[in-house]
Amino acid sequence: MFDSSVPVFIHFLNSLSAILRKAEVHCEARKIDPNVMLNMRLFPDMFALTRQVQIAADGAKGAGARLAGIPVPSFPDEEKSFAELQARIGKTIDFLGTLTKAQFEGAEGRAITFKSGGQERNYTGAAYLETWAKPNFFFHLTTAYAILRHNGVELGKPDFLSGGKAV
Amino acid sequence: MFDSSVPVFIHFLNSLSAILRKAEVHCEARKIDPNVMLNMRLFPDMFALTRQVQIAADGAKGAGARLAGIPVPSFPDEEKSFAELQARIGKTIDFLGTLTKAQFEGAEGRAITFKSGGQERNYTGAAYLETWAKPNFFFHLTTAYAILRHNGVELGKPDFLSGGKAV
Repeated sequence: MFDSSVPVFIHFLNSLSAILRKAEVHCEARKIDPNVMLNMRLFPDMFALTRQVQIAADGAKGAGARLAGIPVPSFPDEEKSFAELQARIGKTIDFLGTLTKAQFEGAEGRAITFKSGGQERNYTGAAYLETWAKPNFFFHLTTAYAILRHNGVELGKPDFLSGGKAV
Repeated sequence: MFDSSVPVFIHFLNSLSAILRKAEVHCEARKIDPNVMLNMRLFPDMFALTRQVQIAADGAKGAGARLAGIPVPSFPDEEKSFAELQARIGKTIDFLGTLTKAQFEGAEGRAITFKSGGQERNYTGAAYLETWAKPNFFFHLTTAYAILRHNGVELGKPDFLSGGKAV
């Protein structure tokens, strides 16, 4: 359970960080106001880029904490710049880095209860990780990528898969 | 390895099927040529909806076969309608349904070698599943969803998560 959660989230948070660095460079090169890019969305009732990043990071944080059986730390949603989103991703990775394999003993069968969309959700740890936490995480990561691609940032699948390594 | 792959792929292929049914109904209700929707994309050098669906389905099929240690069945990319995409998803689910837990014994450490983007890729089974197969699968599933949302189809996160149950 540890191996299929914590290092996976860290890997893809590093991808997200690298993707956002490319987006920031793109804005600088084309004199695009970064606030415009951070507020782009694919449809009026979808979340903007900043919120997609916050939700992806929160998904990784929540999954790590719940599976480890510890309280979910709360990070305020106050980011207004690429630098602040990078810091948000960084502190999420730092938190995940504090989790240990020992905390994940028995996480597969652990009862996971939380609220989302005003509804209480009940899962076992394994079902939570595989049918809620990782799918949601990749959903918001991919939507962030899609917003940037749709707005002309030159990204490719290797940026998504790289774990932050240069591509 | 079986539990964190085969039923997960089947669950989300059923989500994809339900999402495409809603898209088809949307086209009928608004007299949109289904071919127009099937060829929508988020940027000129991104894949269109049909191809996103084919790649998502192929990702699930390839992962199931490789982790089971059997040859990957080849399905031709010939779909030209929502009905044909539903059939493609259906036969992918049927194939995954033939795989057994016994075939996945030791899959975690199995050497997985395949070509993608002209490059040979080498993974152990666990790393292949968690950093290649599932992320790629969710990438294409989410991009299909994003194309439809961007084009006005009324979908929400529950459609993505539902596993095909009515939402």
